[in-house]
Amino acid sequence: MARKLGILAGGGILPQRLVEACKSSKRQVFVLAFEGQTAQATTFGVDHAWVRLGAVGAALEILRGAGVDDLVLAGPIRRPSMAELCPDKQAFKILARAGARAFGDDGLLRVVMDALESEGFKIIGVNDVIDGITAKPGPLGRVSPDETARVDIARGVDVLQALGAVDVGQAVVVQEGIVLGIEAAEGTDGLLARCAALGREGPGGVLVKLRKPGQDSRADLPTIGPETIIGARDAGLRGVAVEAGATLVLSRDAAIREADRSGLFLIGISVGQ
Amino acid sequence: MARKLGILAGGGILPQRLVEACKSSKRQVFVLAFEGQTAQATTFGVDHAWVRLGAVGAALEILRGAGVDDLVLAGPIRRPSMAELCPDKQAFKILARAGARAFGDDGLLRVVMDALESEGFKIIGVNDVIDGITAKPGPLGRVSPDETARVDIARGVDVLQALGAVDVGQAVVVQEGIVLGIEAAEGTDGLLARCAALGREGPGGVLVKLRKPGQDSRADLPTIGPETIIGARDAGLRGVAVEAGATLVLSRDAAIREADRSGLFLIGISVGQ
Repeated sequence: MARKLGILAGGGILPQRLVEACKSSKRQVFVLAFEGQTAQATTFGVDHAWVRLGAVGAALEILRGAGVDDLVLAGPIRRPSMAELCPDKQAFKILARAGARAFGDDGLLRVVMDALESEGFKIIGVNDVIDGITAKPGPLGRVSPDETARVDIARGVDVLQALGAVDVGQAVVVQEGIVLGIEAAEGTDGLLARCAALGREGPGGVLVKLRKPGQDSRADLPTIGPETIIGARDAGLRGVAVEAGATLVLSRDAAIREADRSGLFLIGISVGQ
Repeated sequence: MARKLGILAGGGILPQRLVEACKSSKRQVFVLAFEGQTAQATTFGVDHAWVRLGAVGAALEILRGAGVDDLVLAGPIRRPSMAELCPDKQAFKILARAGARAFGDDGLLRVVMDALESEGFKIIGVNDVIDGITAKPGPLGRVSPDETARVDIARGVDVLQALGAVDVGQAVVVQEGIVLGIEAAEGTDGLLARCAALGREGPGGVLVKLRKPGQDSRADLPTIGPETIIGARDAGLRGVAVEAGATLVLSRDAAIREADRSGLFLIGISVGQ
């Protein structure tokens, strides 16, 4: 019997996919949903509990009570202010331990994961639950990037690696070397929507989306899906490059179909970390 | 008699301010306006010519014909694609000389400035024409940043310096350590408008705007004005930090009045480059 899986459920459909995968494989599963973060549908038909993000003590008690062995972090968590977070004693401890690292998304996540492991849970990655959910290297669909697009991808990688050093940013849009937009708190959909109005004439730009340098692959990985391809197409882009092995591709078949239909490339790239 | 000034006029009102400053000081002035970039009003009542951005040969001929000695670069130039630029022979030479540096805003600007100087023009800064137009160190208005705001400013400086290494980005919005938005091609007004919807509860964030590390102070410096303060206020921010000596403050009195009225700080900070 596989160990019982607890899903710390952020937003979007990924947590639901994990529940489905567990049901298919008859693995026992429990969802910990966060108020204002998790989609309601994630909790339908599965054992679950709702907690505030700042209620770490209650969350740990619930997970232990549910008999969870492994934990997976899935779906984006919108970072709250301290006032919204309203941290309990154990959340405070985590924040204190994080110190200055709490400023970065990744730094904070790492401290949270350490705290969970020290409580006896084993943290696993989404790709340990759903096999083959991350992008493979090379073109996923029929279209490949041309030389101009490859140069833009390289420029995007440079910018994201520089940003990664200060633990922020996972996506960038580049057209003929010009950085049209950099993602921060607005998310990739917001980035793409904005870049629609910023594009220049000539060959369209590219979206580059990477894991941050040193980011734990069990933490919230960059995620794309069919809506990313549609957003890229609507922004006049020519394709999307994601980090192979470190980007979750949701609804992969639909995403590739959408890319092929729109003539966009969707490629998994390898990046020196 | 002061040397005749040529203004390479980008967008916004700064080029007009320079024309006014020359008229006040009886300095001879000539405006080179760029199609699709310069505001029409910049050319009213002053000797001028319009050229395409890519017509470098024609531009040089016009500047020589006008008897210009010094040149000042003023106002933002929206970077065109190669197709829009439609470079002439001399523009091609500049782009070829720039090579990979042409990708960055600053790298390209530096090559353009070198090319202009090798043609015998002397490039001067906006602050050589209008005395005291850059921000001074310390609070410009009545409000000073508190400790939370100072920590956010420091975080913003870190992010901008990391981005500066890849020659992109001049502004960032930070709230309680969370990077809400990073400016690329959309401009500071676009950044502020977007951050209005991204703010968390609790103490509002700050806008930090810096010159890029190593950016020539004669090149297009970061610029703020009253509309920046209004945008920051509407985004729920608590203040604006700019680099002392390296940020142009347009309509300074109005900007300070607006900051004081809204209870925002406006501060010039010194940054190790």
